[in-house]
Amino acid sequence: MRIETRFCSPHIHKVEDGQELTSHVHRMIQEKTAPGGEFLGWLDYADKLSEKQICEIEEIADEIRQRADVLVISGIGGSYLGSKAVMEALCPTYGRKPEIIFMGHHMSSEELVEVTDYICDKEFYVLVISKSGKTLEPAISFRLLRRMAEERYGGDSSKRIIAITDEHSGALRTLASQKNYRTFSIPADIGGRYSVHTPAGLLPMAVAGLDIRAFLEGMKEGSREYSREFLEENAAYRYALMRSRLLEEGKHVEILVNYHPKLMYFAEWFKQLFGESEGKENKGIFPVAMINTTDLHSLGQYVQEGQRILFETVIDILKPKADIFIPGDEQDLDELNYLYGRDLHFINRRAMQATALAHMEGGVPNIIIEVDKLDERNLGKLMYFFMIACAASGLFLGVNPFNQPGVEAYKNNMFALLGKPGMEIETAEIEKKIHAIQEG
Amino acid sequence: MRIETRFCSPHIHKVEDGQELTSHVHRMIQEKTAPGGEFLGWLDYADKLSEKQICEIEEIADEIRQRADVLVISGIGGSYLGSKAVMEALCPTYGRKPEIIFMGHHMSSEELVEVTDYICDKEFYVLVISKSGKTLEPAISFRLLRRMAEERYGGDSSKRIIAITDEHSGALRTLASQKNYRTFSIPADIGGRYSVHTPAGLLPMAVAGLDIRAFLEGMKEGSREYSREFLEENAAYRYALMRSRLLEEGKHVEILVNYHPKLMYFAEWFKQLFGESEGKENKGIFPVAMINTTDLHSLGQYVQEGQRILFETVIDILKPKADIFIPGDEQDLDELNYLYGRDLHFINRRAMQATALAHMEGGVPNIIIEVDKLDERNLGKLMYFFMIACAASGLFLGVNPFNQPGVEAYKNNMFALLGKPGMEIETAEIEKKIHAIQEG
Repeated sequence: MRIETRFCSPHIHKVEDGQELTSHVHRMIQEKTAPGGEFLGWLDYADKLSEKQICEIEEIADEIRQRADVLVISGIGGSYLGSKAVMEALCPTYGRKPEIIFMGHHMSSEELVEVTDYICDKEFYVLVISKSGKTLEPAISFRLLRRMAEERYGGDSSKRIIAITDEHSGALRTLASQKNYRTFSIPADIGGRYSVHTPAGLLPMAVAGLDIRAFLEGMKEGSREYSREFLEENAAYRYALMRSRLLEEGKHVEILVNYHPKLMYFAEWFKQLFGESEGKENKGIFPVAMINTTDLHSLGQYVQEGQRILFETVIDILKPKADIFIPGDEQDLDELNYLYGRDLHFINRRAMQATALAHMEGGVPNIIIEVDKLDERNLGKLMYFFMIACAASGLFLGVNPFNQPGVEAYKNNMFALLGKPGMEIETAEIEKKIHAIQEG
Repeated sequence: MRIETRFCSPHIHKVEDGQELTSHVHRMIQEKTAPGGEFLGWLDYADKLSEKQICEIEEIADEIRQRADVLVISGIGGSYLGSKAVMEALCPTYGRKPEIIFMGHHMSSEELVEVTDYICDKEFYVLVISKSGKTLEPAISFRLLRRMAEERYGGDSSKRIIAITDEHSGALRTLASQKNYRTFSIPADIGGRYSVHTPAGLLPMAVAGLDIRAFLEGMKEGSREYSREFLEENAAYRYALMRSRLLEEGKHVEILVNYHPKLMYFAEWFKQLFGESEGKENKGIFPVAMINTTDLHSLGQYVQEGQRILFETVIDILKPKADIFIPGDEQDLDELNYLYGRDLHFINRRAMQATALAHMEGGVPNIIIEVDKLDERNLGKLMYFFMIACAASGLFLGVNPFNQPGVEAYKNNMFALLGKPGMEIETAEIEKKIHAIQEG
């Protein structure tokens, strides 16, 4: 399958003069000398994953598919968005079996009560995904789920809990060893947002009945195609360079646009990937998403005529998985008969082309990424495309695309406000600030 | 109930010097002399809705609740987001009866095939919401649904279809009269994004089992509280003025933040309301959303350290609908025992305060909107708060907050590309442009 990129913004069409910079960035990535280069394990992870490891994932997935009504997954960020994105994109909306419910990516008490009530009379398995085991949200949800499983399944509960965590150390690794849970490892050299093709992404996909071998093939195809140095041979580098040019021109916000509701969580995955990789040192493009044509009736007005700080990256799916044809109507009061016999996918793509043109002419450049069709292989390749483009984008910008130093600020405040032992001085200080705000 | 606003950005704390402008805008709204003043029917619509009209909505809703497994709603934009926002916020996640499925807000063939397959062996009703009946997405979906209903229920199908449309004219009004559908009216002086408290919003809510009288009471409370002229008495005007000050300071993007996954579609409603009202004449704040703590593990890094073009408006829900307590654990490997016995809502709100402080100190001003608890009444009032704040914001900015001229551009291109009769010249011209882009 092919991924084509088209740039609908004539005045910045040429990227060839960026080859020198691109070659420099290319070497930093491939030789792992980039800032954060110790987290480039994802580059060739799909190639290195052994047949034995894939079989183990498939075997446990089969067991869960046979025995569970519900798989509850406790994970947040990269331990949640990758597999969620792929499952929502490829699984049917109705009648999934087993159901896969995510918990541990929020702290809404109402929602947690509902999930625990819902699963209490169903056969369930628990999958906990956390590198350290101490991230607050999945740790809380896993404490609740572990207790439920132990009350429900007694000594057998350890067979119903699977942990994906650091290979050697951490709270969850220790607990898993003690309790004899089955485990998989998140490699130490892969960060959460680049981990969709590790067991963290693959096991949930396999439980959902998806073909993880095809997904890995797509990843491998991506790793071949997007490890080429030259811009004319590498669409991912062209896309990355185009983004950086657009940012220089004052396009501060990138909208990932698609015309398929099933890609909603793909867009969420994209937002984490780019937002967390680029948003540092007061730099970076702010990533947002639109699902059209829905959002043309919402944000469409703004995109057409609001502040000219936007550009769009549009995912164009060429072939649909299923299609439906417009029926005729004698009276034609709704004036749709001129579309009689047309397939809906054709109409949807016409809407996409019409919108790209209107937005471009309104001052919003469009980058169109063509994908043959939505399946495991193509999605794997598309994700690799974005991962390598994201790494290159961050390096063009001059930031480390593999760390996330800024997430500590709120966490430190939060642990202090929660009275974590050892933080007594911070607690007093931050309590005072919060009080001042609330009185202010 | 009260809605409080707190501004966590000391240097722009004072808004009192905006009273003169506010009074001017206030009069334009209340005397309906604002640009687009002919679309201010929503201001006192809740007061004018008669007992008879409310009873009619409740009666049809009861009938649907008794007889249908599924209600399929065909609507887009304001005919979709308001009721969807309220239902997702207030209904349980699991076990809804009847199921309410939205169609007609996209043109994904795969999704439409799935929905029609899913309902074909279920008892269903159809609700079509469209002022004209000619908006492409709901018109297509309604053609499909109408045919399904006629094949399934024959002569009785007209009893299973309800239309909400213009009171007097339009394709859907004509069809409904011919077919003898039961109908409700969307008032001519209310635009889609301000229509959540009209039958377009109320009937779906009532079918979902929600208390529409309480919702309307909240709207009325809002219309009393936010029709006050003076800033110190009107939190909605204070919020609107603060937004316009933030925009002047280079905060181009507003993030509506909440800590409750159930408010995801409330945020979508907010995005349409503000984006479509303000985004014109190259002006306006670009509205986006974050659902925390989920998105702190995604966009959090960017908010903390990316470009300083952001501000946040945080919805702080004081009391939860249900709560859950942190259990103890002998080993405490996850180091959560210091939270033993704490309720999760407390922890979630602490995360909220910690984040607001961290972001504010990082250069992202926070406006915090406190709401007692999530129920019909409070949500009605909160929506009114945002509606009046949005009208005032648009007028502060100098735009007409009630039109949406920019959505015609893509529609014209689309109808031309689809070969709509009478557009032959445009079709040739736009085909040529699209071809040039695809070759380029």
